[in-house]
Amino acid sequence: MDKSRQPHQRVSLAGMHIDRTSAVPLHLQIAAHIRVGILRGLFPAGTQFLGSREIARQLGCSRTVVLTAWDLLYAEGYLQSTPRGSVMVASVVVPHAEPPSAAPPAAAPAHMSKRWQSLLGLDYETNWPSVFAPGAPDISTFPFKEWSRLLRQSWQNPREQECLDLASEGHPRLRSEIANFLGSVRGLVCSPEEVVVTSGTSGALDFCSRMILDPGDEVWVEEPGFIEARWALTAAGAKLVPIPVDDKGLVVSEGIRRAPRAKLVVVTPSHQYPLGVSMHLERRLELLDWANKNEVWVIEDDYNSEFRHQDSMIASLRSLDREGRVIYFGTFSKIMMPNLRLGYMVANRRFIEGFSKGRARIDVHTSGIGQLALAEFMREGHLLRHLRGMRRIYASRRKALIDAIAALMPDDLSVSSAVTGLHLVALFTDAMQARMSDREAAEILKQAGIHLQPLSQNFLEAPTRQGLVFGYGRLRTEDAAPLLARIAGRIGSGRGDTASEPAKSSRTVRTIKRG
Amino acid sequence: MDKSRQPHQRVSLAGMHIDRTSAVPLHLQIAAHIRVGILRGLFPAGTQFLGSREIARQLGCSRTVVLTAWDLLYAEGYLQSTPRGSVMVASVVVPHAEPPSAAPPAAAPAHMSKRWQSLLGLDYETNWPSVFAPGAPDISTFPFKEWSRLLRQSWQNPREQECLDLASEGHPRLRSEIANFLGSVRGLVCSPEEVVVTSGTSGALDFCSRMILDPGDEVWVEEPGFIEARWALTAAGAKLVPIPVDDKGLVVSEGIRRAPRAKLVVVTPSHQYPLGVSMHLERRLELLDWANKNEVWVIEDDYNSEFRHQDSMIASLRSLDREGRVIYFGTFSKIMMPNLRLGYMVANRRFIEGFSKGRARIDVHTSGIGQLALAEFMREGHLLRHLRGMRRIYASRRKALIDAIAALMPDDLSVSSAVTGLHLVALFTDAMQARMSDREAAEILKQAGIHLQPLSQNFLEAPTRQGLVFGYGRLRTEDAAPLLARIAGRIGSGRGDTASEPAKSSRTVRTIKRG
Repeated sequence: MDKSRQPHQRVSLAGMHIDRTSAVPLHLQIAAHIRVGILRGLFPAGTQFLGSREIARQLGCSRTVVLTAWDLLYAEGYLQSTPRGSVMVASVVVPHAEPPSAAPPAAAPAHMSKRWQSLLGLDYETNWPSVFAPGAPDISTFPFKEWSRLLRQSWQNPREQECLDLASEGHPRLRSEIANFLGSVRGLVCSPEEVVVTSGTSGALDFCSRMILDPGDEVWVEEPGFIEARWALTAAGAKLVPIPVDDKGLVVSEGIRRAPRAKLVVVTPSHQYPLGVSMHLERRLELLDWANKNEVWVIEDDYNSEFRHQDSMIASLRSLDREGRVIYFGTFSKIMMPNLRLGYMVANRRFIEGFSKGRARIDVHTSGIGQLALAEFMREGHLLRHLRGMRRIYASRRKALIDAIAALMPDDLSVSSAVTGLHLVALFTDAMQARMSDREAAEILKQAGIHLQPLSQNFLEAPTRQGLVFGYGRLRTEDAAPLLARIAGRIGSGRGDTASEPAKSSRTVRTIKRG
Repeated sequence: MDKSRQPHQRVSLAGMHIDRTSAVPLHLQIAAHIRVGILRGLFPAGTQFLGSREIARQLGCSRTVVLTAWDLLYAEGYLQSTPRGSVMVASVVVPHAEPPSAAPPAAAPAHMSKRWQSLLGLDYETNWPSVFAPGAPDISTFPFKEWSRLLRQSWQNPREQECLDLASEGHPRLRSEIANFLGSVRGLVCSPEEVVVTSGTSGALDFCSRMILDPGDEVWVEEPGFIEARWALTAAGAKLVPIPVDDKGLVVSEGIRRAPRAKLVVVTPSHQYPLGVSMHLERRLELLDWANKNEVWVIEDDYNSEFRHQDSMIASLRSLDREGRVIYFGTFSKIMMPNLRLGYMVANRRFIEGFSKGRARIDVHTSGIGQLALAEFMREGHLLRHLRGMRRIYASRRKALIDAIAALMPDDLSVSSAVTGLHLVALFTDAMQARMSDREAAEILKQAGIHLQPLSQNFLEAPTRQGLVFGYGRLRTEDAAPLLARIAGRIGSGRGDTASEPAKSSRTVRTIKRG
């Protein structure tokens, strides 16, 4: 504090530029100007400013504006009062010579956790633009009119309690509709109290992983399997143990041999991803028996079972589970669309209670914006109606694809599974495999603008099978043969069409999101 | 396989009950009946059933229904064909004597991770029913009409790409509106590319904790501080190091002394929670200087700054940050409502990139149901209008509360901070503290149906101050004096009203959710 400074040394703000068109109020502009000046060293500690009346006159604003700016800078510690009542720059520590700039700060060198590095380090191509992306639904016939009407309706006069205090388990009416839906569409009997609304399968897996697993704990995952589902497990610090899948599904005995002390099993029993195998009953019972004896949790990801015709639908693991060890996952990402981030989990009540209480402390609950609207959408029957229509559409797309593969690449590819869904695996024949690997095939096709997932990408260890994963949710039936002809032309043993006209329909979706 | 069984030994389904009113199709009912029978041991391996025609006649259904049930049980492995073409129960492993029941499975003894146990074990009362809950907004004047209209509008004709492939960072238009909002309301200059849409502050903290911290890494947290924000840190395995807050905010030198190798600092500089202190400039610069030199990330939780009058608004840490070490958190939970689960994060682009890529692999993105509607809601000015109205309302509620405290409990409580928000802390005077602790006071008031948070609940270590945290977001001005009179009657030094009529207004909200 330099008490020798005289009033005539006091500083004016005459040079300051004021922007009267800005949304930033005048007093904040003044405060910012002074702040930057102090940090730049233009106004060293002890600097006194002219009186507020003079500054107001200079700037052409009211004195109140200036006093408000002073108050603000005073509260921030930039200014302090002098004994004579004028304002003075305080002795603040200014560790940097340069001022903070309005430009975006430079990127700081990042300290990043090991788990995050391992998450980012995983090499897996998901964002490929393809009509063949597995899991992409067709939304062209979705009843947006009803959905948007119900969204509006649900928000016109909402209940205060639901706005301020939605239960962590989800909206009671949605939980109840999901229980009804599972009973009629899936034959899975459960009560609304056993249902939790989740932010999709990934979000549910993220919380279950952290609830069940300590870092280093072993988890059985299917080999080949859904790699994307493994990321949340990886982030939770789990040790993934790949367990082979044969034509009866997960080889439980091999799991018991490889990881007898696993704490969790993640499995897709109805329609194994990606092979499409349905897990046989004896394997299901074997798995449940082992899980019960060893207090292991089993996550049953029942993705896409809604699209199957009921004829081919197989009782869920959850319905065989008498001891409450199975945690059943479902999602609205495929039967509606992925950007909703809505799904559900069915589990025993004690698990639900521990899950919800812990989850509430980490991320409160799934967004409440669409929960009531979705409950009404289900109650009014729009979801079932849409589902029935999509089953027919997907079945015909699947048939068109299988027919095209059989007609155009009979010596190269063999389609393994019979039930419907949103994708199929075309395994390489021995002849095909002798010519190239599936990764090579995918690379060749990518050059031609056709993006297909190589089956081997779904293995954690050395792939034991080669093939291509064809999503067909968005494949129009009339495009199946032309596209297969182009594929055959590039990688087939010779029957295909080698013309290379651009396939418009293969470029519509950029990324397909997990349920 | 018992080949000696004769056709006359074949089993009928005559006793089976068929429910024609059920949503479960007939063939699934038949399959369920047989499945349960097999698991119960009623149909041992080798059992052959009557022909499909006879069974159809018995049950009064079509033969196709029976054949469909057979196909299903065959696929599941329960049945197999005999050489003579009839169906027979397969030799399945049946490990249990009892059948799976339709009743909810019993709770399994839970293996639960240590992190989850520690999360559930934390003793903290949040779900108290109170008009004084800190952080609860008043939504009675919220423009639901506009919000519901925009929700409908945004879903009437959505873009396919946004439905199937919303960017992990959030809807581009919402990111852009948030950047504008921060510029005009908060004076924080940032580009849309530095903004990520989050599922509220808790969700953002959950991902940032996991991105930045390895288990055992140290984090500075404010003491006292927002305990709920500490849960996600705990779940990430962080070691929380409480750093005291004085009347200039976080005592940075004490942080450097206690945890010089911390990887992260979580701080509420604008309006420290719960004390309401604004962090002084020199402390801010000291913190940034240390963070830059030591490559430490700083999370600035700028909760509720929107409610402050601009006069009392202080430049954010983020605007002083030239090296991109500050991660700025904001939420729509308070300025709109908590069930939206929508918030945002501002950080340097490299951080945003690593954050979004990793987050996409764990939980894809924040729900897209309301993102476009919210962008329009902001663009059309409804949010700013609502905010202006709420600022006035909250300021008058705050004043009514402060006046009531000053009038009715002048010798017991002293209100420490002057800026507005949604809560204030009334510190105990020495006289009051000599009579009881804040936990005792809260317990006495709870008996009278008045739920107030004791300040000491916000300490990790031994509390150094005693007081009561009053949320006033939902406190009507006319209720302030009567409620304070009741409080004074229970815990005051004698001036209060001891009448104990029920206070209706104190029972409206059950839980208040974190932003």
